[in-house]
Amino acid sequence: MRTIPNPDRPQSPLAERFARVRDLSVALVAPLSDADATVQSMDDASPAKWHLAHTTWFLETFILRDFVHGYALHDDRFPFLFNSYYEAEGRRHARGRRGMVTRPTLDEVLAYRRRVDAALLAALPRLPEAALDLITLGCHHEEQHQELLITDILHLMSENPLEPAIWPAARKVPVEMPGPIGWIAGQAGIAEIGFQGEGFSFDCEGPRHQTLLSPHAIADRTVTNGEWAAFIAAGGYAEPRHWLADGWAWVQTQGITAPLYWEERDGGWTRFGLDGRRAIDPAAPVTHVSFYEADAYAAWAGVRLPTEMEWEAAAAPHDAAGGNQLDTAGPIEPRPSAGGPAFFGDVWEWTGSAYRPYPGFTPVAGAVGEYNGKFMSGQCVLRGGSCATPRGHARASYRNFFYPHQRWQFTGVRLAKDL
Amino acid sequence: MRTIPNPDRPQSPLAERFARVRDLSVALVAPLSDADATVQSMDDASPAKWHLAHTTWFLETFILRDFVHGYALHDDRFPFLFNSYYEAEGRRHARGRRGMVTRPTLDEVLAYRRRVDAALLAALPRLPEAALDLITLGCHHEEQHQELLITDILHLMSENPLEPAIWPAARKVPVEMPGPIGWIAGQAGIAEIGFQGEGFSFDCEGPRHQTLLSPHAIADRTVTNGEWAAFIAAGGYAEPRHWLADGWAWVQTQGITAPLYWEERDGGWTRFGLDGRRAIDPAAPVTHVSFYEADAYAAWAGVRLPTEMEWEAAAAPHDAAGGNQLDTAGPIEPRPSAGGPAFFGDVWEWTGSAYRPYPGFTPVAGAVGEYNGKFMSGQCVLRGGSCATPRGHARASYRNFFYPHQRWQFTGVRLAKDL
Amino acid sequence: MRTIPNPDRPQSPLAERFARVRDLSVALVAPLSDADATVQSMDDASPAKWHLAHTTWFLETFILRDFVHGYALHDDRFPFLFNSYYEAEGRRHARGRRGMVTRPTLDEVLAYRRRVDAALLAALPRLPEAALDLITLGCHHEEQHQELLITDILHLMSENPLEPAIWPAARKVPVEMPGPIGWIAGQAGIAEIGFQGEGFSFDCEGPRHQTLLSPHAIADRTVTNGEWAAFIAAGGYAEPRHWLADGWAWVQTQGITAPLYWEERDGGWTRFGLDGRRAIDPAAPVTHVSFYEADAYAAWAGVRLPTEMEWEAAAAPHDAAGGNQLDTAGPIEPRPSAGGPAFFGDVWEWTGSAYRPYPGFTPVAGAVGEYNGKFMSGQCVLRGGSCATPRGHARASYRNFFYPHQRWQFTGVRLAKDL
Amino acid sequence: MRTIPNPDRPQSPLAERFARVRDLSVALVAPLSDADATVQSMDDASPAKWHLAHTTWFLETFILRDFVHGYALHDDRFPFLFNSYYEAEGRRHARGRRGMVTRPTLDEVLAYRRRVDAALLAALPRLPEAALDLITLGCHHEEQHQELLITDILHLMSENPLEPAIWPAARKVPVEMPGPIGWIAGQAGIAEIGFQGEGFSFDCEGPRHQTLLSPHAIADRTVTNGEWAAFIAAGGYAEPRHWLADGWAWVQTQGITAPLYWEERDGGWTRFGLDGRRAIDPAAPVTHVSFYEADAYAAWAGVRLPTEMEWEAAAAPHDAAGGNQLDTAGPIEPRPSAGGPAFFGDVWEWTGSAYRPYPGFTPVAGAVGEYNGKFMSGQCVLRGGSCATPRGHARASYRNFFYPHQRWQFTGVRLAKDL
Repeated sequence: MRTIPNPDRPQSPLAERFARVRDLSVALVAPLSDADATVQSMDDASPAKWHLAHTTWFLETFILRDFVHGYALHDDRFPFLFNSYYEAEGRRHARGRRGMVTRPTLDEVLAYRRRVDAALLAALPRLPEAALDLITLGCHHEEQHQELLITDILHLMSENPLEPAIWPAARKVPVEMPGPIGWIAGQAGIAEIGFQGEGFSFDCEGPRHQTLLSPHAIADRTVTNGEWAAFIAAGGYAEPRHWLADGWAWVQTQGITAPLYWEERDGGWTRFGLDGRRAIDPAAPVTHVSFYEADAYAAWAGVRLPTEMEWEAAAAPHDAAGGNQLDTAGPIEPRPSAGGPAFFGDVWEWTGSAYRPYPGFTPVAGAVGEYNGKFMSGQCVLRGGSCATPRGHARASYRNFFYPHQRWQFTGVRLAKDL
Repeated sequence: MRTIPNPDRPQSPLAERFARVRDLSVALVAPLSDADATVQSMDDASPAKWHLAHTTWFLETFILRDFVHGYALHDDRFPFLFNSYYEAEGRRHARGRRGMVTRPTLDEVLAYRRRVDAALLAALPRLPEAALDLITLGCHHEEQHQELLITDILHLMSENPLEPAIWPAARKVPVEMPGPIGWIAGQAGIAEIGFQGEGFSFDCEGPRHQTLLSPHAIADRTVTNGEWAAFIAAGGYAEPRHWLADGWAWVQTQGITAPLYWEERDGGWTRFGLDGRRAIDPAAPVTHVSFYEADAYAAWAGVRLPTEMEWEAAAAPHDAAGGNQLDTAGPIEPRPSAGGPAFFGDVWEWTGSAYRPYPGFTPVAGAVGEYNGKFMSGQCVLRGGSCATPRGHARASYRNFFYPHQRWQFTGVRLAKDL
Repeated sequence: MRTIPNPDRPQSPLAERFARVRDLSVALVAPLSDADATVQSMDDASPAKWHLAHTTWFLETFILRDFVHGYALHDDRFPFLFNSYYEAEGRRHARGRRGMVTRPTLDEVLAYRRRVDAALLAALPRLPEAALDLITLGCHHEEQHQELLITDILHLMSENPLEPAIWPAARKVPVEMPGPIGWIAGQAGIAEIGFQGEGFSFDCEGPRHQTLLSPHAIADRTVTNGEWAAFIAAGGYAEPRHWLADGWAWVQTQGITAPLYWEERDGGWTRFGLDGRRAIDPAAPVTHVSFYEADAYAAWAGVRLPTEMEWEAAAAPHDAAGGNQLDTAGPIEPRPSAGGPAFFGDVWEWTGSAYRPYPGFTPVAGAVGEYNGKFMSGQCVLRGGSCATPRGHARASYRNFFYPHQRWQFTGVRLAKDL
Repeated sequence: MRTIPNPDRPQSPLAERFARVRDLSVALVAPLSDADATVQSMDDASPAKWHLAHTTWFLETFILRDFVHGYALHDDRFPFLFNSYYEAEGRRHARGRRGMVTRPTLDEVLAYRRRVDAALLAALPRLPEAALDLITLGCHHEEQHQELLITDILHLMSENPLEPAIWPAARKVPVEMPGPIGWIAGQAGIAEIGFQGEGFSFDCEGPRHQTLLSPHAIADRTVTNGEWAAFIAAGGYAEPRHWLADGWAWVQTQGITAPLYWEERDGGWTRFGLDGRRAIDPAAPVTHVSFYEADAYAAWAGVRLPTEMEWEAAAAPHDAAGGNQLDTAGPIEPRPSAGGPAFFGDVWEWTGSAYRPYPGFTPVAGAVGEYNGKFMSGQCVLRGGSCATPRGHARASYRNFFYPHQRWQFTGVRLAKDL
């Protein structure tokens, strides 16, 4: 079901892209009830309904309100409810109370989407370049929220003692256990990183600049569930020696003993996913681990995490649109790799780099300038994209970022070492 | 719509009562969406869906499971989800996480209700006396949850910045402002309090016993919104002299300046209710005040709160089923009193008595013995019933109890003084 | 060493009493270093230095400042530091930060005491009756702080992993294990309780009034350490059935498994005291238990706690100045009882009564009116006095009060039962 | 007063250095009472007595215990009390409870120091190279604790409403207000950073390695109090636009409106120091600001903080032992600079770099390997040394680190910008 039929007018590529992105969000919430879409399971997560509305508010505010003369807000109380963190856009609802908003209902939010989509598509042919750029930004923005939508629903379902599945299990293609990690010698010396080219990128991906890499090697695949189970069996979570001090404090105070969603049942490890609770696949990439866990694993293994520069240099030649990424609404899971090194899809890979500005970075002007720059403290860079990342969203230069204790995203581990 | 049509069989009075009680709960949630019924707005409150399911679990567990041979649980995962606090019934879901349970849906919970209701009515003719007593208890239990259902929904709606109304405003009968409080001389000397007679009562209402009252008088009505506004205007919330030390600490740390749901708008006081935000009615009883506020008001007025014994002695001659109590699902609100002293309905009245056992009290044996006795510390007794109390539920001997800071119930203030 | 030599003038009885009380406080801190006297071990406790200064501020404020013309404050910054909770006396230092005040030093505080004592004794012969009454109040006030001083130091020392002893062990008189509890039939019908007579009492002890007692019996001794060890061995701390709901939550969240200061060492129970860590004496009264524990023990034993009215009626004939109470600075500990029923000394006895005003109670006017009345919510009444209570301080009508979870005082358990 | 007279034996340079360092610690606590040295003012700070004992435990453990045959611990309970965070050395006292340890007293801790110093100096001539290296490490370790000792005492005194001074004010040499910041063009291209050479360095300062600097300039002095007052006056603390998101949350929840220890009095800014409360010197470097404040100031000024690589490249030619650093126990304060660019002393300078390992970093083996590596997450690098840093301790390659909200150290701001 397309939400935005527009039969009479030839679609521009941007309009098509816009429609496709907007449709996917709606498709993702298809299995959800009004209640599923409303509840907030933790401060870090948002209700599905909020994601649907917030992405719409973004478009309504920065495009329709700012560029379409005479446009009247769908509901003038919505900006207070659905602004996320744009200080320049005024006061807003407290993040931790988003789950209190049972009304508007899911249906009303879907109607809000349709209204805004129609208005935007109608206005599109006459919009100036600046507005078109903001539509493109809005599409990428919405793709980010699609991934959050999946991971936030997963977290919510995991909090239900009944552990409901919203999707069936993915059909498994039998895959052999991967062999030992192979090491790819990394480029040493001056390399160039950061976005360049014609397409879209976020401001934090640039400016493209030179960086100096020291001699190193990077693993040809990510760490698997089976390898992680061995780390647990070896007492990895009980030995402070492997852990950063902050990580050890986190393990101790939170009682962490395994990746998020793992539980031991009948002597074997299981994980919870949107297809319910199932046995882990030892051949598949481990996911839902924090930076602290990733770092501890690397320390236990006698190696380290790659820097984001090393990662980008290694990944640049690979196809950013390949691998196990999100195409449609339906079963997703990191999957055992069939073949050669793949840097995109399956799991976001923690790097050892703090999320800080590149040399010469300046945020975009205006409210959308709050998009990236103001988060540049305390967070770690992740690279590569995951099985929940809309295909086409990630790039070699793409910088994702989370706090070191967070692990409800599809986060995993690729190792590196000095040569 | 009756949930429990039972056309072929003459109804026993108990069956009729049971059906009526069960119907009212369903009617109360009629204006709610699945999301409205699922979200938990604070630890003290529960989702509407949980109330519907918990009261059903109570019947299923203590009657069907324990007395009906061969009864199979509707869902064997529900006891974990819907047991409230019965330690003897095993582990249960954490109270503060009740709002995570988006599934079962509201519809599924309503189906659970129908299944249990049908099984119970079918079994009823052959149930032993002990089971019939538990059905009666189950009805009273459900009436308590009906009141909580109303107050919990009210709290949830108040947390939504849009302040939705689920009911229209009650039609107002114009009433004159009440005159000054009149003082009813109380009985001094030995009085008898506590439940006696044939009907139902909770274990904590007995044994009936003698108590000694000292000379005192009790107000002929409760404190009004208008009087409370005068207390605020006189600086009542800013003057520690009036307050218990715990109350003053609560006022300071929570920033309390008015009853719950009151806000000043355009220079006048408004309150939020299930009919939305409206101007306060100065003639109506004040409600949503804590024990701390009630006590401070009394201190400011130079008098005190009644003891629960004084209250019961004064209220005993009055009609417990009279006044402004809940008859059907629909607009409720404390209302200005038309005539003589009424001790029942409108608002629960804070007494100065701690909730402690009467002389000779012993809890009922078994799991239902956890119903009252274990809560006998730290809480204050309230008497009288409110506009949200199902008519027929309250009695002169009825002891309601809440912590001194709680005020999301329809709680108000009746004054007393020493003679 | 007397702090207040006054050789040239015949001492009035009040002056002698005053000097004796003031001396005892100083004697109690004799074993303390400046650091011992400065640190605050928890919000509930105060530094010893603070107790010494606060009691002095009380005298300086309510007597010297208010009644002695031309008296200049010893240090005009001290009222901010050493006012406890008298709102009418203005702003004051946050209770939880009292331990930050390393200066004034212990020596400077002792000098403050000497200055105030000298000024007060010099003024005493010319003070009006109202001031003399306040001196008497000040003596009783100081006696209360002497007990807190002991219990606060004990708590502080218990927080030191070295578990230092500040006093030698009391010399033990061998005592036989007490036999089973004997039950004293209590008076039933109307009894009079509350203070009457010539001497001093706190406002909350009155007015004397009639109360109605139901048929009951009260234990002839308190529960012993040996009996408590049996409660523990029987799983008393692991069985929710015995506990009030608030108590069970406290046990679970705080990990409570034994009285405060108890630890199992080499298979036997020890306790920490101001004479260090030693084996418990099974014959001695158990102490450092909370109301929750006292109530659970009684429930386990199939009986209950006495009400404060029952206790007072039973204790009235006994010598309030007898038993194991504090005479001088030195080793203290609840001791096995040698003979017949004793209601005073050893341990404060939790009653089942909430601390609420007596009929006709009105607080004293002025700042000292904040002494008792404002604490009348959420607390439980204890009766009898302990080994840390200055002899002569307690009375049959004396109402001590603490929150139900507190147990750093010398608190114990006497049982009662309905007849 | 030298603590370690050793008249009969020619001192080795290491022994002399050791004695000098150990003496300074003792001199720093000379103005402190036992109580001053015992109280812990916050979790981040430690009691002075603890610093004195911990540095001694470090020497006793890693040198005397491990290298001196037959050495008996001074007190075998001390390792539990005075181990800071060395997991490999076993369990230890909770960091936040260090202030409970009133015993051992300050005098006993000083005796512990003398005992260990004497044993170590006696053993020194026969110690192997590895032990001598650990003595050197112990000296540098103690210098770090000297700085903490000063800042922790300052914090404690600031918590006392009397605001005591422990030192007189430093004599002021009148200095002209500095002119506008001058910009030093930084080296662009490949630079080498990290420690190299013969002397001591911490493991985290290496390995020395190449880094790539982009075109930039660095300020020739740090930001002054006068400039900071202008930032405040311009609304700097009230405008979210300037702040990192984490910083803005910190400002809002903590109510931050000025540097730590600043207060407005009579219309002018004052600061608290170890010489009491005094007017700020507008010409002196601002101090006690967090990373968040430093970053916001730079954003407000339209520039940025330097990276630690830029800083080190710029500072390398300067005299690390010059400027306003700690020589003796006595008045300290950041001072207006008299002349050309100085990179050392006055205040630690926040850089924009996260504290992460250099390429090829591996921690030292054994317990002392916990010294630096495990703290490499969540913290920011500071460079340069302060007025509280013992002269000779800092180096161009020296990496200090704190969390971005911390500001009780002498922390300040140097600006940089892209060219």
